[in-house]
Amino acid sequence: MEELHIFSPATVANVSCGFDAMAFALEELGDEMVFTKNDSGNVTISEITGADLPLEASKNAAGVVALAMLKDANADFGVDMRIHKNYKPGSGLGSSAASSAGAAFAVNHFLGNKYSKLDLVNFAMLGEEAACGSQIADNVAAALYGGFVLIRSYEPLDIVAISTPQELCVAVIHPQIEVKTEEARNVLPKNLDLHIAISQWANVGGLISGLHSGDYDLISRSLIDRVAEPYRKQFIPGFDELRNAAMTENALGTGISGSGPSVFALTKGMETAKSVAGAMESFYSSTGIDFKVYVSGIGKNGVRIID
Amino acid sequence: MEELHIFSPATVANVSCGFDAMAFALEELGDEMVFTKNDSGNVTISEITGADLPLEASKNAAGVVALAMLKDANADFGVDMRIHKNYKPGSGLGSSAASSAGAAFAVNHFLGNKYSKLDLVNFAMLGEEAACGSQIADNVAAALYGGFVLIRSYEPLDIVAISTPQELCVAVIHPQIEVKTEEARNVLPKNLDLHIAISQWANVGGLISGLHSGDYDLISRSLIDRVAEPYRKQFIPGFDELRNAAMTENALGTGISGSGPSVFALTKGMETAKSVAGAMESFYSSTGIDFKVYVSGIGKNGVRIID
Repeated sequence: MEELHIFSPATVANVSCGFDAMAFALEELGDEMVFTKNDSGNVTISEITGADLPLEASKNAAGVVALAMLKDANADFGVDMRIHKNYKPGSGLGSSAASSAGAAFAVNHFLGNKYSKLDLVNFAMLGEEAACGSQIADNVAAALYGGFVLIRSYEPLDIVAISTPQELCVAVIHPQIEVKTEEARNVLPKNLDLHIAISQWANVGGLISGLHSGDYDLISRSLIDRVAEPYRKQFIPGFDELRNAAMTENALGTGISGSGPSVFALTKGMETAKSVAGAMESFYSSTGIDFKVYVSGIGKNGVRIID
Repeated sequence: MEELHIFSPATVANVSCGFDAMAFALEELGDEMVFTKNDSGNVTISEITGADLPLEASKNAAGVVALAMLKDANADFGVDMRIHKNYKPGSGLGSSAASSAGAAFAVNHFLGNKYSKLDLVNFAMLGEEAACGSQIADNVAAALYGGFVLIRSYEPLDIVAISTPQELCVAVIHPQIEVKTEEARNVLPKNLDLHIAISQWANVGGLISGLHSGDYDLISRSLIDRVAEPYRKQFIPGFDELRNAAMTENALGTGISGSGPSVFALTKGMETAKSVAGAMESFYSSTGIDFKVYVSGIGKNGVRIID
């Protein structure tokens, strides 16, 4: 029986101006998953730690992905998985995406890497649908490709890997409150003023150019979200103060991770990420709301095998 | 008396998905201008060929720019200019921008390069205002910076130079009809459906990433304008046929140059640009409308001194 032990990263989707089009993977935060190839011909989940999630494969994001892949490949083997969630679902850090992408990566490994990364994104999106109700690509694409990704198009699905400057790091705070994805979606306007839309794509252009050329100042100037943040920040107590705390410690910029409640701050260098995390922690300690804080490099390789 | 002979390039603004935020300069097409530094303490225009434009400095785009710069710098000299327009105003190829940018570049030369490129864009925007009624940055920025530029922000003005792949070329057709900028502006919707806006900034991200990484396929896939082209193409007879002719000859993509009537097609390589130009020419010959066709590399350096 072949066993595969992997790390599947947490991911930040939207990335400020890149609403519904950009995401990146974290280096240090993510789930660990152990997959065993067996003769059962079926998909089983023998253990989940760190979160209360369904063990029945057809109701679990990772299980749904594995089932779809084994069926599509007409595989003659089965897979058992043990899932260790190192951060909580509902954080806005792509928890279901980490499980879905991890399953897609591992099953593909057992299949002799039959599928391309783009194929894996398509399979992992089935896990997102099972967990969140829609086939969102951003978090799973970042988890599978690593680094920064752009979802240029859904039909056809077109994922673009974007260069990541060496020193780029991130601090994340996860206030332990619930933001319903549905509610975060409904609060957005259906239409945008043309001038706001233009400034949003000008900032997306600036952010992507800054990432490619390693221009941290340009990255910083471009991290402006005029589309989602003005409407969604109401769901995150102390959002403006978190931003101020991060910027005072020289963050390049901040944003809501996915649809929240986590808030991320990009930085140049790990020392700055730690200072920013400290400042966010210091402020949030005064709110009476439980929270977790993380610092990390950008996860350049996405899902990876660990020994 | 010091004399300066310059070339100031034609420019393509908007660049399909990059509506109101992107532009690029041409290598081979542009105006020639001869500037003479003199003791008059004033700005004069002694000759304009190729177009019927005001000789009075305060009413001419280039004149307005020169006057503003000499005043701002408290200069103790005057400037005379001779302007040779090599392509017609009203083409959508930044004719007034070429004059404005050329004047800004030349006067700055006489001032010992006192001003930065960004300063020059600000001065040249005064010429755009004189000629077109508003301080548009895209064409003058492309003419002054060369290559591709992104206008990330107007307040404050932030111009980003974008890498240009070596082999990128362009074919342009200028149907000799008039499209009023005002009319082209009024036909646009004031608001965008959120999904259309997202696809536009995803394509901007793809285009800029493709330019940086020299990924011609990605550039090609990203050259989609869902914001302006659907409304503006009605002003350009045979627009869809021009596009089809260009794509049949392996253009990477097409778009309306500025607010038209010129249509551009980006290509990989000059041979393809020539084939594309030939196909556009061949189709347009059947319409009974006069036209000019140009092929060019991307003007990597913008305004330049010629001997």
